[in-house]
Amino acid sequence: MNDLFTNVASSLMLAAPGFRLYALCAIVLILKMNAVGIYTASTRARLKVALNPEDAARFGAQLATTEHPDVERVLRAHRNDLENIPGFLVLGLIAVLAGAPVLGMQICFIAFTAARVGHSIAYIKSMQPWRSISFGIGQLSTLALMVMILIRLVA
Amino acid sequence: MNDLFTNVASSLMLAAPGFRLYALCAIVLILKMNAVGIYTASTRARLKVALNPEDAARFGAQLATTEHPDVERVLRAHRNDLENIPGFLVLGLIAVLAGAPVLGMQICFIAFTAARVGHSIAYIKSMQPWRSISFGIGQLSTLALMVMILIRLVA
Amino acid sequence: MNDLFTNVASSLMLAAPGFRLYALCAIVLILKMNAVGIYTASTRARLKVALNPEDAARFGAQLATTEHPDVERVLRAHRNDLENIPGFLVLGLIAVLAGAPVLGMQICFIAFTAARVGHSIAYIKSMQPWRSISFGIGQLSTLALMVMILIRLVA
Repeated sequence: MNDLFTNVASSLMLAAPGFRLYALCAIVLILKMNAVGIYTASTRARLKVALNPEDAARFGAQLATTEHPDVERVLRAHRNDLENIPGFLVLGLIAVLAGAPVLGMQICFIAFTAARVGHSIAYIKSMQPWRSISFGIGQLSTLALMVMILIRLVA
Repeated sequence: MNDLFTNVASSLMLAAPGFRLYALCAIVLILKMNAVGIYTASTRARLKVALNPEDAARFGAQLATTEHPDVERVLRAHRNDLENIPGFLVLGLIAVLAGAPVLGMQICFIAFTAARVGHSIAYIKSMQPWRSISFGIGQLSTLALMVMILIRLVA
Repeated sequence: MNDLFTNVASSLMLAAPGFRLYALCAIVLILKMNAVGIYTASTRARLKVALNPEDAARFGAQLATTEHPDVERVLRAHRNDLENIPGFLVLGLIAVLAGAPVLGMQICFIAFTAARVGHSIAYIKSMQPWRSISFGIGQLSTLALMVMILIRLVA
């Protein structure tokens, strides 16, 4: 009985339109966020600065009380991810579970994922207006997903 | 076959008690978080300060090395959102999927959403003890949701 | 009809392999994040410092323009949670919904949860290399979950 339930449950989701693309985009976005985190650590290592005394001792780095501007830039890029990506991931799953239009979800998932990868690159490389444009595309994708969910809720 | 699965899957979720209210609250909370982010940008624009040289050049703003106190206040309000809202959104979906009691979920979803909107307003407008009260209501709603999920897990 | 759907939907998820453990780990991780937030507040209270004038007035604390190093350490531990935990919670639910291998999910869920609890303790107590080791276990658990999801997506 449990086996049947199990097979039906996971088949239902893998067959749900948009779920596979959603899962793939979630993986890309979370890998990308982790990459930004690793870039923060490698920037600190390159500049030989550390904020924690135990790290300064361990890596022979200089103990700083404030972050280096180059590190702060990466931290701001990462923070912008934290402000936008978890919310989008929750909305994307809600859209799949609510049966939002497939083509609309596909466009939103791909546009958001591409835009957020572009945002990180543009932020770290100080590329304007590309940073603002990619941020805007991410916001529009999020809004479009909200509208599609709302239509399903009242349908 | 896939069409049948699809229709069943999305019907199941739209019919699941609490799912529609959960989805609606998720949209309100994510819109609210984005609004705080936009308020940060507009506060920086009003004060004509920028942390990135490329933004200072583009908007004719003054390049600052540290944030203005007014901007820092909005950033703290936003950070408090990041510390609380994504976790609640995940718990809310778990509660719906686990079939937690409907009335309990409805109270938690509405109380949390209202409290977090109130928290942002109270933080930005320096309104105490309202900021602490709204934070506390948010925490209590989160704890209540955890208890309801735990009861379903052991049931 | 709705009642039937409802019972089937929540039975499906409670019977889905890994869902109960996933829900339990999500609760532990979110409680742990909240505990770090409370520790920040209690560290500020112990040092009698406040960043908001309304808090300084209310608690008889000294108004500071920058955080005390002890508070900053807790904030960094908390920020590292924000960078890693919400993404993992989304991936964990995707893995359950996609029907990833049960044993693999169980190992990842337990390893990640234990590692992140260890990370907070190691960060706050300045314990190296334990902080780096626990961070690494968390990252590896996340990557393993991604691989298991990807295998299900192409299967």
